[in-house]
Amino acid sequence: MATKIALVGIGKIAVDQHVPALKASADWDLAATVSRSGRVDGIEAFTDMAAMLEARPDIPVVSLALPPAPRFAYAEACLKAGRHVMLEKPPGMTLAEIHMLEVMAAERNLSLYATWHSRMATGVQPARDWLADKVIRRVHITWREDVRKWHPGQDWVFEPGGMGVFDPGINALSILTEILPAPVRVIKARLETPENRQTPIGAQITFSDNVTMDLDWRQEGPQTWTIEAETDGGTLTLTDGGANMSIDGQAQVTDGDREYPRLYARMADLVKTGARDMDLTPMIHVSDAMMLGERVVVEPFHF
Amino acid sequence: MATKIALVGIGKIAVDQHVPALKASADWDLAATVSRSGRVDGIEAFTDMAAMLEARPDIPVVSLALPPAPRFAYAEACLKAGRHVMLEKPPGMTLAEIHMLEVMAAERNLSLYATWHSRMATGVQPARDWLADKVIRRVHITWREDVRKWHPGQDWVFEPGGMGVFDPGINALSILTEILPAPVRVIKARLETPENRQTPIGAQITFSDNVTMDLDWRQEGPQTWTIEAETDGGTLTLTDGGANMSIDGQAQVTDGDREYPRLYARMADLVKTGARDMDLTPMIHVSDAMMLGERVVVEPFHF
Repeated sequence: MATKIALVGIGKIAVDQHVPALKASADWDLAATVSRSGRVDGIEAFTDMAAMLEARPDIPVVSLALPPAPRFAYAEACLKAGRHVMLEKPPGMTLAEIHMLEVMAAERNLSLYATWHSRMATGVQPARDWLADKVIRRVHITWREDVRKWHPGQDWVFEPGGMGVFDPGINALSILTEILPAPVRVIKARLETPENRQTPIGAQITFSDNVTMDLDWRQEGPQTWTIEAETDGGTLTLTDGGANMSIDGQAQVTDGDREYPRLYARMADLVKTGARDMDLTPMIHVSDAMMLGERVVVEPFHF
Repeated sequence: MATKIALVGIGKIAVDQHVPALKASADWDLAATVSRSGRVDGIEAFTDMAAMLEARPDIPVVSLALPPAPRFAYAEACLKAGRHVMLEKPPGMTLAEIHMLEVMAAERNLSLYATWHSRMATGVQPARDWLADKVIRRVHITWREDVRKWHPGQDWVFEPGGMGVFDPGINALSILTEILPAPVRVIKARLETPENRQTPIGAQITFSDNVTMDLDWRQEGPQTWTIEAETDGGTLTLTDGGANMSIDGQAQVTDGDREYPRLYARMADLVKTGARDMDLTPMIHVSDAMMLGERVVVEPFHF
């Protein structure tokens, strides 16, 4: 009894993650795509959202894998057409627009899911469980990658609203806010912004409770996505973006990449029960860092 | 049966507004102040918050008129000591810290009030009522004042977290979000930031639904705090920060300044019923504008 779903925005993330996850799932039947240029072999392809909603009233769920800037208009159209909606991260360009979508979905009893794929990495739930009864003394996030490798030529990440290095950094924040037993708040932020760009390429964030974060988009060679938590019961380390978890250097869990299959399993549950899952905490921290951050101009960046 | 209240932060806004409002109210008995240097004649004065909370367990309510940066620690101390708390605007330096205060207050069944004094201006409720059944075609906010007059020498407004011209601008946003029948969202923002400062001195914001805002801190001479709404039933104008309301040029309401007396009357109601009032919408719009704003460097600013 697979549920029909339409996938919107057939770019790199859709091809790499969404399509394989949907094809492998018994919950879902990928019934249509909407994209200006991309398509998936054997699946009905639309280039226009309104046309898809009109032609396929039999598809009750839409997954939006578009960049954040155009996403609001698509999500609004889907909700107004009575469809359940799943949102790639970050769930929008502004907090206000996401609150508006929540209200629209609630008024229509539709499911709406602000996904955070990194929260579904294999080490995250074990890390949360392990930390629950510890005294946490210090947490440090190191998230260093090469923007030229992951966003080749994508100028939009450096344009207003593109979030800059917070685009990957929000993944770290989605894990942090999932595993910590109590909330934290940004106290100070240093935002390194290239002279010729609008958004930061590096950032150092100080949170309350001895939590710090180091984000950098200029790391060539090996890439680092690590969260380390020192506690009264030892040191927990999440590496590879949450995939692997160790305590005092001893590996605890290792598993293949199951992030997107788990997101779609969660969406299937939400649709079954008519529920919504809209935790905006990771984005609130980005927003807070941008609001109170000190801007430091660094050398120009060119792809 | 006046309720005892302590006022924290005896600066300009406390002396000009909070103290007169409290002294004129039958609901409140100003029983103590906490301030490093300020005091109020005839009222027990503390310089240390912890000392006040320790010495005066008989004071159940604390009003915080401090700047946003140090406010969180004071609010947290009050809530942990079982006191109801009233917060000057903006309610904090970050959204995350305000959410933390909300959780603390809720866990302890304490009242917490994020005040927006401009919402209490005399024209605001009539404007809200009048707009409720209109088709709104266009709204424009003009908020132009002289920072040298209103914040003489206060460098903190230009430091990270000081919000810059959004410090007065958030007053306009608190009115906008009160009078509009449906929510709006920031779509685009231009932030004019002096070469030698961190926060904007001017900003032009485009919201959805044909709502625009022009903020400027460089206006000498007459000061302008106006919101104009064109509708199918005529044009509504709020002037003088919401004090006066007119329809098609005809004055509808005029009244003295009653903003702070109304805030304290509302706080008395909240404490009576154990309720909280924590609408963060005005701050979310500031945060959204700072997150997706285009930064334009303008000439250096010196007081």
